[in-house]
Amino acid sequence: MKAAILAVAPDVRLVDVTHDIAPQDVMEGALALEAIVPMFPAGTVHVAVVDPGVGTTRRGILVEVGGHVLVGPDNGLFTPFVTGAEARVFELRVERYRRPVVSATFHGRDIFGPAAAHVARGVAASRFGPPIARPITLPWPRARSERGRIRGEVVHVDRFGNLVTSIRDGDVATVQDEVTVRVRGRALRLVRTYGDLGPGALGALIGSGGRLEVSARGASAARTLGARRGAPVVVSPSMPTRSTKNRSRRS
Amino acid sequence: MKAAILAVAPDVRLVDVTHDIAPQDVMEGALALEAIVPMFPAGTVHVAVVDPGVGTTRRGILVEVGGHVLVGPDNGLFTPFVTGAEARVFELRVERYRRPVVSATFHGRDIFGPAAAHVARGVAASRFGPPIARPITLPWPRARSERGRIRGEVVHVDRFGNLVTSIRDGDVATVQDEVTVRVRGRALRLVRTYGDLGPGALGALIGSGGRLEVSARGASAARTLGARRGAPVVVSPSMPTRSTKNRSRRS
Amino acid sequence: MKAAILAVAPDVRLVDVTHDIAPQDVMEGALALEAIVPMFPAGTVHVAVVDPGVGTTRRGILVEVGGHVLVGPDNGLFTPFVTGAEARVFELRVERYRRPVVSATFHGRDIFGPAAAHVARGVAASRFGPPIARPITLPWPRARSERGRIRGEVVHVDRFGNLVTSIRDGDVATVQDEVTVRVRGRALRLVRTYGDLGPGALGALIGSGGRLEVSARGASAARTLGARRGAPVVVSPSMPTRSTKNRSRRS
Repeated sequence: MKAAILAVAPDVRLVDVTHDIAPQDVMEGALALEAIVPMFPAGTVHVAVVDPGVGTTRRGILVEVGGHVLVGPDNGLFTPFVTGAEARVFELRVERYRRPVVSATFHGRDIFGPAAAHVARGVAASRFGPPIARPITLPWPRARSERGRIRGEVVHVDRFGNLVTSIRDGDVATVQDEVTVRVRGRALRLVRTYGDLGPGALGALIGSGGRLEVSARGASAARTLGARRGAPVVVSPSMPTRSTKNRSRRS
Repeated sequence: MKAAILAVAPDVRLVDVTHDIAPQDVMEGALALEAIVPMFPAGTVHVAVVDPGVGTTRRGILVEVGGHVLVGPDNGLFTPFVTGAEARVFELRVERYRRPVVSATFHGRDIFGPAAAHVARGVAASRFGPPIARPITLPWPRARSERGRIRGEVVHVDRFGNLVTSIRDGDVATVQDEVTVRVRGRALRLVRTYGDLGPGALGALIGSGGRLEVSARGASAARTLGARRGAPVVVSPSMPTRSTKNRSRRS
Repeated sequence: MKAAILAVAPDVRLVDVTHDIAPQDVMEGALALEAIVPMFPAGTVHVAVVDPGVGTTRRGILVEVGGHVLVGPDNGLFTPFVTGAEARVFELRVERYRRPVVSATFHGRDIFGPAAAHVARGVAASRFGPPIARPITLPWPRARSERGRIRGEVVHVDRFGNLVTSIRDGDVATVQDEVTVRVRGRALRLVRTYGDLGPGALGALIGSGGRLEVSARGASAARTLGARRGAPVVVSPSMPTRSTKNRSRRS
């Protein structure tokens, strides 16, 4: 793929971001892009390929949003970027911007890499093909606030068994200073960082991408808790309410 | 190795292609190079190191072919490139183009990287050492056509259990439109892409490097079929012959 | 992290060295840096992040030594570089050289990457914060010479089970030409390279970083020998002394 890019645009700067997304895990790829894309300066072209449907009828797309361009398969990989009003999406259909022979198994090399290189050389997004009104999106749960609590769910279990949730740092900040994170019947502390957890201990923290995560230090939180995608997660104030206090005093 | 290259040629563009060849698997390295080298523009210098014999008597070589230069061990890694008439091969013997101290365990850093950097700076291939008439080559089976069938064999089992064969896309194209791929007594469909296979199902497809491969979706074709390197593979027309048709009608 | 670097210094050349240090293995990181840093030309800025204590009270540091600058956590990762008299160490405390918001879990992106980029742009080391007299260091055993023998120990077991020792190539060179390496009651040959060992056989060799290593070809030396960090390793002349010879003749 890099060779195909350099063949079109010999002077671009190539930056490897990650080759460690689990095979065919489109959701993991989408979460990684959500965290990574905004870190790069405007004008960056991002090629992302997690592509179980390569060679089938799934389309290739180009997304223009916030000064960034994303190129890859239309399978939900760009979900965090296509839902906003300002996103413009085009199908990659014009043959001139592909390799002359397109394989059925490696569109990164034959379609996405060359398209990204042409964008980097200044070809306008609209010239790659017709606009797409409804690109494919993954279910993308959001947290909701309810009586001083935040309710969300596990959206992804990563390969270490960490539970990535639909709750964002900004959501957590709306709750009290000291919060408790509940998942699968366990009440967990919100810690600042991994080093605050004892070995094997469970806790919740804000990951570097800004999402609340549940982790077990040196172990799989998913296995420890028996939790999987979709499991409910609730953030609530840690301080007991007055009535609770009274009750505990009486008992 | 990158540091050793940059020490000689600070302005070269370094492109990482893969660090995922199985340790000491020279055949996998050779197949990867076969697919990758022609993708890069002429003038590219390729350093490749899969080198179980490092520090022994195996030689280092430089191959000049089709505008590309390949640098690495003389152990068969460059088999697809040294057999043509236009390939010129030289031994890496001149000390001036090495690091001052050469270790017995890391020739990538001490010999190959620096040699590649000197080539990139314009040193002629012939100045690195004497020409080599017969570089080491791996057995490199080719498919043969026989009564409308293509006969080949498994040349490599990759780490996912895919069977890479000696049959090329061009070979397959000479057979009928619909073909059947036979291996270990099983008759498999030729599909366009992985997505055309059901979960766990076996099939054959043309890999992105242009070779016929036998795969099981989400499983090891090698284990499922009990197939290993050298196993015969036959591509034949799918259409039943007339007599077969007649027989099936009668039954 | 790369995006954070490029945001500050768009024109730097980024070189990936390794992403394969075992998670949280600060000693492995330190040994890798010991081998890698001197290979790069003076003026290189090295960012290294093996950081189990991220977000805790551990400091971030910048080390200036021998024309190189190293940036990362103050947890011993830079042990080989901070002990010399010429090393200057500064704490990374000035906020102007960080990302505006600093997370508790990803200082590579928020502190170390940006600091490295500012160094690359010419900001003097002393401007990042106050000098540190005693950065954290790992135990860093050295070999000692004793009656014609070199005594050292295992300092690291890598993921392949190789035993990396505190004995350097220069130490070994002071012993006789033919030496025997003793570890866990076994007497091993010093070989030049892996190819000199039979399959599964144990031997010692000088690794590419200049340290004596004990390896089992295609197996784990640590498991085969039951050896771990701290196990004594002795290098002695292979030739029996005269008295030993006499004794063996008599018996």
